[in-house]
Amino acid sequence: MFKNLKNIVGNANYFDDEAHLNAYCYDATRERFKPDCVVFPKDENEISKILKYCNENKITITARGAGSGFTGGALPKNGGVILALEKHLNKILEIDKKNMIARVQPAVINKHLQNVVEKEGLFYPPDPASEDYSTIGGNVSENAGGMRAAKYGITKDYVMALRAVLPNGDIIRAGKKTIKDVAGYNIAGILIASEGTLGVISEITLKLLSKPKLSKSALGIFPSINSAMEAVYQTMASGVTPVAMEFLDNLSINAVESKFNKGLPKDAGAILITQVDGNLESEISYQLEVIEQIFKQNSCSGFRIAKDSNEAADIWFARRNASQSINIYGSKKLNEDITVPRASLPELLEKISQISKKYNVIVPCFGHTGDGNVHTNVMVNGSDENELKRGYEAIEDIFKTAIELGGTLSGEHGIGLSKAPFMNLAFSEAEMNLFRTIKKAFDPNNILNPGKMGL
Amino acid sequence: MFKNLKNIVGNANYFDDEAHLNAYCYDATRERFKPDCVVFPKDENEISKILKYCNENKITITARGAGSGFTGGALPKNGGVILALEKHLNKILEIDKKNMIARVQPAVINKHLQNVVEKEGLFYPPDPASEDYSTIGGNVSENAGGMRAAKYGITKDYVMALRAVLPNGDIIRAGKKTIKDVAGYNIAGILIASEGTLGVISEITLKLLSKPKLSKSALGIFPSINSAMEAVYQTMASGVTPVAMEFLDNLSINAVESKFNKGLPKDAGAILITQVDGNLESEISYQLEVIEQIFKQNSCSGFRIAKDSNEAADIWFARRNASQSINIYGSKKLNEDITVPRASLPELLEKISQISKKYNVIVPCFGHTGDGNVHTNVMVNGSDENELKRGYEAIEDIFKTAIELGGTLSGEHGIGLSKAPFMNLAFSEAEMNLFRTIKKAFDPNNILNPGKMGL
Repeated sequence: MFKNLKNIVGNANYFDDEAHLNAYCYDATRERFKPDCVVFPKDENEISKILKYCNENKITITARGAGSGFTGGALPKNGGVILALEKHLNKILEIDKKNMIARVQPAVINKHLQNVVEKEGLFYPPDPASEDYSTIGGNVSENAGGMRAAKYGITKDYVMALRAVLPNGDIIRAGKKTIKDVAGYNIAGILIASEGTLGVISEITLKLLSKPKLSKSALGIFPSINSAMEAVYQTMASGVTPVAMEFLDNLSINAVESKFNKGLPKDAGAILITQVDGNLESEISYQLEVIEQIFKQNSCSGFRIAKDSNEAADIWFARRNASQSINIYGSKKLNEDITVPRASLPELLEKISQISKKYNVIVPCFGHTGDGNVHTNVMVNGSDENELKRGYEAIEDIFKTAIELGGTLSGEHGIGLSKAPFMNLAFSEAEMNLFRTIKKAFDPNNILNPGKMGL
Repeated sequence: MFKNLKNIVGNANYFDDEAHLNAYCYDATRERFKPDCVVFPKDENEISKILKYCNENKITITARGAGSGFTGGALPKNGGVILALEKHLNKILEIDKKNMIARVQPAVINKHLQNVVEKEGLFYPPDPASEDYSTIGGNVSENAGGMRAAKYGITKDYVMALRAVLPNGDIIRAGKKTIKDVAGYNIAGILIASEGTLGVISEITLKLLSKPKLSKSALGIFPSINSAMEAVYQTMASGVTPVAMEFLDNLSINAVESKFNKGLPKDAGAILITQVDGNLESEISYQLEVIEQIFKQNSCSGFRIAKDSNEAADIWFARRNASQSINIYGSKKLNEDITVPRASLPELLEKISQISKKYNVIVPCFGHTGDGNVHTNVMVNGSDENELKRGYEAIEDIFKTAIELGGTLSGEHGIGLSKAPFMNLAFSEAEMNLFRTIKKAFDPNNILNPGKMGL
């Protein structure tokens, strides 16, 4: 049955050998689910034919960009077809300078797009940590965030229009190259973050900004998490909007120090790393003055502004290397991306500390505090079953805490498989029913990426 | 059957007398459709009971805020129940300064919210021309725009979360008080601009900004529409983002002059009125310098910066009074709000001028060029049937032109009844089918605001 797909994509773009099935069975979760075959469609019309065939034959199908997701969004849980977009659908179709818009195929790499538009003086802000390899299609499907979200928002804020293929093979366009468009239901809005469960995105039109001419980074050291978190939300409420406002807690600082010996203060409760941008020197200095004042009012010491790009790289080193450094605390990282309203950050971090003690697990935290998004890493010894169990219990408590504080299970990684068991914590039965109704409306035979999002 | 609703809302909140039926049968389109009754729910639970009853008895129901819409969104086309939210659901529930968020009931008046948050140093940017009387619920249901959209975006950019009641009576929450949230389908995204056809919005959580400390307005006179439109998109691409970039064409200028004699240049092709804001004097002057330079490169004369609020009011007078002034050209105004990618504005305006000649109708244009949104007013003698017919033919040509240029039927007014006949110009059969599928998934008995959006 799968082999009939050769009639659509040709022999050169259909594979069911072990090497291919193994190469397309994983993502960043390290879970593995083998597909039955891997196909590389050449264009939207082939995607349409593949989906129509799969729909008529009730074959499940999972679209895949780079496979760099953290929650299993691109894993073929029930086998079936992997629709691999990376080979043929990886082109930037248009950079429209006059309208400040880019039109791209789904498998364009995020950083590649950033580089190309910056050469034209333009700016695509969403910068997930995976920017060097994750694709725009994947970013849209998971609604990826990034460091710059505090000021510039997330992927959904840049999607002006999509083309997509529905399970019945219909090709649709949603949205326009216009700032405003209120005609018809907001289909683009519901396809974003739908993790490939409603349709396959075949083309993306993105809003670009003008690239700010100047930027500067700064770092502050705080005696406690609490003082740092107070400084975060006071800054955001001051009228100054930093591009980024990142933090590392004491555990993360010590992890970076033990690996790299950068001279960070090992007794600090937290450090905050921030960046501001603009077109005028006076804008930059005004923003940094406001931030310095608020930081110092919250017991910040060692406030330091980077004088040049080398110093900026030095300031950012700790943040960029936090994720790899914390592996000193355990061989397995249960990495979550809960998000709460900014003003609840002090309470969230305090409660995470209590949960860490309760379950006797180490939980270093760092992340995007400017938008309330904390990377919470429960570090465990993966071969110690008891510790692993305690780790998962801690995660569940952390999710419950985030939701009690008005927060969400995921700020940017998505639900996929990893967080599917927790959907009932976050959503009522009525809400889950509505999700199921929508899924069924788009995909009555449940062929598209089944088993994701707890549906 | 309708009278049973008294059991839910009580006698004091149920009306089917002629006075009420007449008071709730119109909106800004001046079309009239009489409901069978008008009910004033006290809270979300009553809305739930009403919807459940109507769903079980297949009674159609139309939610209504201020009834100020331009496309008939709040008109009960097939009679049934008017669910009038203005009486009891008009409260600001929370201004959360720390998180910079407002939580409101749907019938809060837009301008009232703006005023309340500005007293706290905060800022709710969406400012539709109807801001003095339109409601936030109506703004969300139509995804209202406004003058400030060029810099600050539109209603959807400020909706963080919604509570809504589904036709089966289920009460759902969609979205969070967090900047990022990627858990579950983006239900808030699809309820926005759905014109009350999918659910009844019962509570809205809005993002607020910090109020910029300074702003300044300026005006430029251009020899032609074309030179003005070139100046618009060059400004938007310069890195300077004005809060507003509004234009009046020659016909609109002359209409304002003939009514108010403000000394505007009657031979000008167009005037542009712009505003910039920021927290620093240097930011303001930088932005105005860039704009002045671009304007003058595009043959602008008489560039004038308002020195104080009186002069600013004077500069804005023409724009604020354009809509009422153009009535000198005809007793009936066929008022549309097409939107195109900004760089296509020169071509759009040129083609509208050709269409005006072809059908021998006067078409003054003004509006929000910063976001490509042109208010196109086909002015006709309403009692001249032939002229009216030519007017409607011109409108259809204008819609076709906007769509050919990659634009949309509506930038901010919605589709409602007025533009429903033109949906097939803008959407393919596959796209219309998807809209119908979504409508049916939310509202299988088609009780919510039937007949709108061409569905």
